[in-house]
Amino acid sequence: MKPHLSLKNNLLIFLLTVVASNLLHAQNNILVFQSDFGLKDGAVSAMKGVASGISANIKIYDITHEIPAYNIWEASYRLVQTAPYWPAGTVFVSVVDPGVGTDRKSVVLLTKSSHYFVTPDNGTLTLIAEQLGIQEIREIDEAVNRRKNSGASYTFHGRDVYAFTGARLAAKIITLDKVGLKLPNKVISIPYQKPVFDGSKIKGGIPVLDVQYGNVWTNVDQKTFDKLGVRLGDTVNVRLFTKDTTAFDGTIKYVNTFGEVKEGENAGYFNSLMNFSVGINMGDFAKTYKVSSGGEWFVELSKK
Amino acid sequence: MKPHLSLKNNLLIFLLTVVASNLLHAQNNILVFQSDFGLKDGAVSAMKGVASGISANIKIYDITHEIPAYNIWEASYRLVQTAPYWPAGTVFVSVVDPGVGTDRKSVVLLTKSSHYFVTPDNGTLTLIAEQLGIQEIREIDEAVNRRKNSGASYTFHGRDVYAFTGARLAAKIITLDKVGLKLPNKVISIPYQKPVFDGSKIKGGIPVLDVQYGNVWTNVDQKTFDKLGVRLGDTVNVRLFTKDTTAFDGTIKYVNTFGEVKEGENAGYFNSLMNFSVGINMGDFAKTYKVSSGGEWFVELSKK
Amino acid sequence: MKPHLSLKNNLLIFLLTVVASNLLHAQNNILVFQSDFGLKDGAVSAMKGVASGISANIKIYDITHEIPAYNIWEASYRLVQTAPYWPAGTVFVSVVDPGVGTDRKSVVLLTKSSHYFVTPDNGTLTLIAEQLGIQEIREIDEAVNRRKNSGASYTFHGRDVYAFTGARLAAKIITLDKVGLKLPNKVISIPYQKPVFDGSKIKGGIPVLDVQYGNVWTNVDQKTFDKLGVRLGDTVNVRLFTKDTTAFDGTIKYVNTFGEVKEGENAGYFNSLMNFSVGINMGDFAKTYKVSSGGEWFVELSKK
Repeated sequence: MKPHLSLKNNLLIFLLTVVASNLLHAQNNILVFQSDFGLKDGAVSAMKGVASGISANIKIYDITHEIPAYNIWEASYRLVQTAPYWPAGTVFVSVVDPGVGTDRKSVVLLTKSSHYFVTPDNGTLTLIAEQLGIQEIREIDEAVNRRKNSGASYTFHGRDVYAFTGARLAAKIITLDKVGLKLPNKVISIPYQKPVFDGSKIKGGIPVLDVQYGNVWTNVDQKTFDKLGVRLGDTVNVRLFTKDTTAFDGTIKYVNTFGEVKEGENAGYFNSLMNFSVGINMGDFAKTYKVSSGGEWFVELSKK
Repeated sequence: MKPHLSLKNNLLIFLLTVVASNLLHAQNNILVFQSDFGLKDGAVSAMKGVASGISANIKIYDITHEIPAYNIWEASYRLVQTAPYWPAGTVFVSVVDPGVGTDRKSVVLLTKSSHYFVTPDNGTLTLIAEQLGIQEIREIDEAVNRRKNSGASYTFHGRDVYAFTGARLAAKIITLDKVGLKLPNKVISIPYQKPVFDGSKIKGGIPVLDVQYGNVWTNVDQKTFDKLGVRLGDTVNVRLFTKDTTAFDGTIKYVNTFGEVKEGENAGYFNSLMNFSVGINMGDFAKTYKVSSGGEWFVELSKK
Repeated sequence: MKPHLSLKNNLLIFLLTVVASNLLHAQNNILVFQSDFGLKDGAVSAMKGVASGISANIKIYDITHEIPAYNIWEASYRLVQTAPYWPAGTVFVSVVDPGVGTDRKSVVLLTKSSHYFVTPDNGTLTLIAEQLGIQEIREIDEAVNRRKNSGASYTFHGRDVYAFTGARLAAKIITLDKVGLKLPNKVISIPYQKPVFDGSKIKGGIPVLDVQYGNVWTNVDQKTFDKLGVRLGDTVNVRLFTKDTTAFDGTIKYVNTFGEVKEGENAGYFNSLMNFSVGINMGDFAKTYKVSSGGEWFVELSKK
């Protein structure tokens, strides 16, 4: 054996090892939590503790823990608002679970975009299933996928089942087929008003408010909106209403950004999810006009 | 030397190296923060910055930073609610410190469960010492365990002493014996009502509310509760009171989960920490009956 | 070749590899976010998802996301309050951006302390530039430094430009010179009252409140304060006022810590940033005397 060759060999080993070691750490071990637990007590921390105990190599993040208590619709919305921005392979654990301890199913959904969702199947998956597509769903078999010695607690599946299972998926300790039995490719869905154009008007829903700034986000996408023939800089008739009341009915300028209207002036624009939205430049539209969101709230748009 | 052997050697080295490198990263370098600082200013971030500067390999998490200002009791409760779910070796830094700058001791407590707690010894360790057991306590010697050049600030020991010391422990830069002098195995304790059965009634405390959902958590454990002879599905007499007022006095059905009572109905159940609790299915018990928590609040349970 | 040497060689390789691998992970890949987005929706999570997709080795932290909506001054203050405690090389992304979509510049500032700031240049950099010094500023060239296929959204530069660019800097995928064209070493600055001593009185500003505890933080540093000749244990005349009203005018004891005055008593002290501050021991000074903060609020100090 020639020393020269050996040196080259060793160098090669060295480089391969560094590369391999980094690949190991660089793979996607991301676990993202969402819940209606709030951040004032220890519930979120208990979930992260369980996850950390499963593998030290998981990277743990959050969507929000401020989903209003029991608001499954908003849980569904926040998932679809954020999941597409996380890399493929990311595991989401969403726990808004008013039916904990009842017979709602605990599932893992793998989307066509290769994101995993660990959650009760109670409507939370409505928008994810629709917009990212279902690749596979399995029911969590709690006989194997549950924290040891946690059988006595009936009330904290977030910690004992969902965080536990999500962490084992994120750490690649189990693969999807070890989660439990395969289910048919459908989920419990919450009905809502989809955007439709009737030849003169668009009707759509108000799935959520942009709470921090008071903007109103409709679910009218650009393609549907364009059927109105309204162009940037034009005004558009906007009505925001429930079955019982009309909160706002007026014309609003359609712009790219708030910078194109004066302070205090209304503006219509496409938000960061590319849905038509209305707001007040440096103001709070929702508060000013008492607009809220959810299945009972609708928008109607027409050309002026 | 035979090339064949050398190849095997090299392969062995390669594998060993990958394993070793991963073990290094896989060990528990977890640091968990808790405080009453809130999340609106930069105080928590300054602590995490100091910790990150000590070692890039620490993994930093939180319990909560929304402990009500100066509420040492709640700090104690949140620690014991979460610490058991984190892996052995985890280092907790808890900073609820109304006496900063006075002569309260700064300590590190190692529990029998091998969790570390870095905190002022002002009552914060009451429940941890009691429930996880004291393995060793040392007083932090600020002459060596304090951020460099931080001597001028008297008011932020969380950043300059606790985060600094906690991070050095979590990163294994120091071991417990380098923290400072060993103290006797006891801590400053906040007195509270423990659950007792007098032959017909149980009296206990209400250490904390399940704030997000409005449930009332007592400290009555399953073993004490079972002395009443009340079974699942039975009702139990529940009185919630202070020295001066009785907030609630009535019978409540004892169930495993809220799913077993109707919406709007009261339920008694064992919470995720396996303590007897009462709540309203999809409602807010604490708000409805004006129940609060802390050393002044008591529960009395008896068989109907 | 002697086997003995080979063994030593291999051992050396092994050790070098472990060291190298750890160095790789130990280097500063820290990315710290700040915004006025709040934590109730998915905006912060979308930014972190984008960053995580760029490199799995980034470590992501936060200052706060509770900057009051559009409050650029407070964004500036929180940066300077925390950045010095993070290690050199840390990349900060600050998104308080009322002018999104207008012609305010998107920049990366490298300070003399080697911290990076990725932000709109709208006043956010006022205090950072002043206190940490400008080493270099570059304008972000969105033709290359923008998330792919994000061109349609005009409203979320935090996600599409700032998180994207910050993550690429933190992951060392790009160096500062790849950000875009170099700008002159100055930033948009918000004017404010600096602390000045006129021979008998100090006049200064009230940049921010210590919101969690209700303490009032002035910007009077120790060196300026010492010109009054007031010593620890003495009292000092304190006036807190706006153009129109005086909220507080009285004498306050100057101490190291609240422990030196009784509960409910006022105290003057140097805060964790070493600026003169006033508070009530176990009370809320700002609420009690209706003091607020910002460019319209001033402090006047004189010797009793």
